[in-house]
Amino acid sequence: MAHVALKDENSHGIVSLLQTFPDTARCLVSLAEHMLRRETPGLSMAEREIIAGYVSRLGQCEYCDLSHSRVGEAMLGRPGLVEAAVCDPDSPDLRPVLKALLPIAAKVQRDPKSVSAADVARARTAGASDQEIHDTVLIAAAFCMFNRYVDGLDTSRPADPSEYDEGVERTIERGYVEVLEELLSGETNPESK
Amino acid sequence: MAHVALKDENSHGIVSLLQTFPDTARCLVSLAEHMLRRETPGLSMAEREIIAGYVSRLGQCEYCDLSHSRVGEAMLGRPGLVEAAVCDPDSPDLRPVLKALLPIAAKVQRDPKSVSAADVARARTAGASDQEIHDTVLIAAAFCMFNRYVDGLDTSRPADPSEYDEGVERTIERGYVEVLEELLSGETNPESK
Repeated sequence: MAHVALKDENSHGIVSLLQTFPDTARCLVSLAEHMLRRETPGLSMAEREIIAGYVSRLGQCEYCDLSHSRVGEAMLGRPGLVEAAVCDPDSPDLRPVLKALLPIAAKVQRDPKSVSAADVARARTAGASDQEIHDTVLIAAAFCMFNRYVDGLDTSRPADPSEYDEGVERTIERGYVEVLEELLSGETNPESK
Repeated sequence: MAHVALKDENSHGIVSLLQTFPDTARCLVSLAEHMLRRETPGLSMAEREIIAGYVSRLGQCEYCDLSHSRVGEAMLGRPGLVEAAVCDPDSPDLRPVLKALLPIAAKVQRDPKSVSAADVARARTAGASDQEIHDTVLIAAAFCMFNRYVDGLDTSRPADPSEYDEGVERTIERGYVEVLEELLSGETNPESK
């Protein structure tokens, strides 16, 4: 049982909150769409999802972690990439710029004042632009919010991790705003079947 | 020097980021307006600002702390209220429902999974509705984001705390969205004079 009554007690994680608080939902989902899905010459959509999943794994928010790690990993065709990044920051599976940005994301998650000029210089040497450094800090900061929203209200998560798969596919195809509007219109409910 | 180049190096804190990244700014400011300023039968605007300031003080983000604590305190005519709440959770200066919600906000800031059914039951006994419990968790979570965005990019803050006063007055009168649009149109720049 979550800490507040939910519109659909069979839904999980942030979906259960989005359904119950639709005005808040539209603000949060606009931000997610902007951060993770907009066209930009910098980090790919997949890499931005990997940062979101990585930060959520550090924050031990399984719902956000699996939702976003799997989106990023599926887009890249690299299952297990977030786990590889957590276990080995020098993992050869990571593009150099992402390898230099993930430690910044980790510091933002733990203690934002610990991000140093040296961390940022290392990211620039690896090819990161100001926009990419900004986006990394923003995504890491925002997932500190999403993790806390989901876990601070004690929402449930799917018992079977394969239950994330349908939402992952839908997100990759259509993005967050379109999936939310479908959810709120009652056309589909990705999680309560 | 912040970790990324800013449009106006004389601006501070989140204002310097909002000016430099206007698309991100509109998403973040819509969320702030919705959380802190919308009409609701629950927590007053002032109390929601107090929660934002309180969480930012715990997160040691001086810019967000002083910006929001002062808005809430000015609206209530109670200078020093956030400090009183931090020093004494049973401060008689706090309305009982806020006294029961601030410990939930503090737990969300530190460890969201530590918010217990007993914490929530205590808030309900003090008169908190589901919407107020939700809003407390959301505001606390969101300021974990705003604090990290401001400090993770190492933005500056005013040397003299009285420099916050003009922004506080403008926010109380007009709200976040209107102040942002003025800022982005170049009509006013609250901080760089």
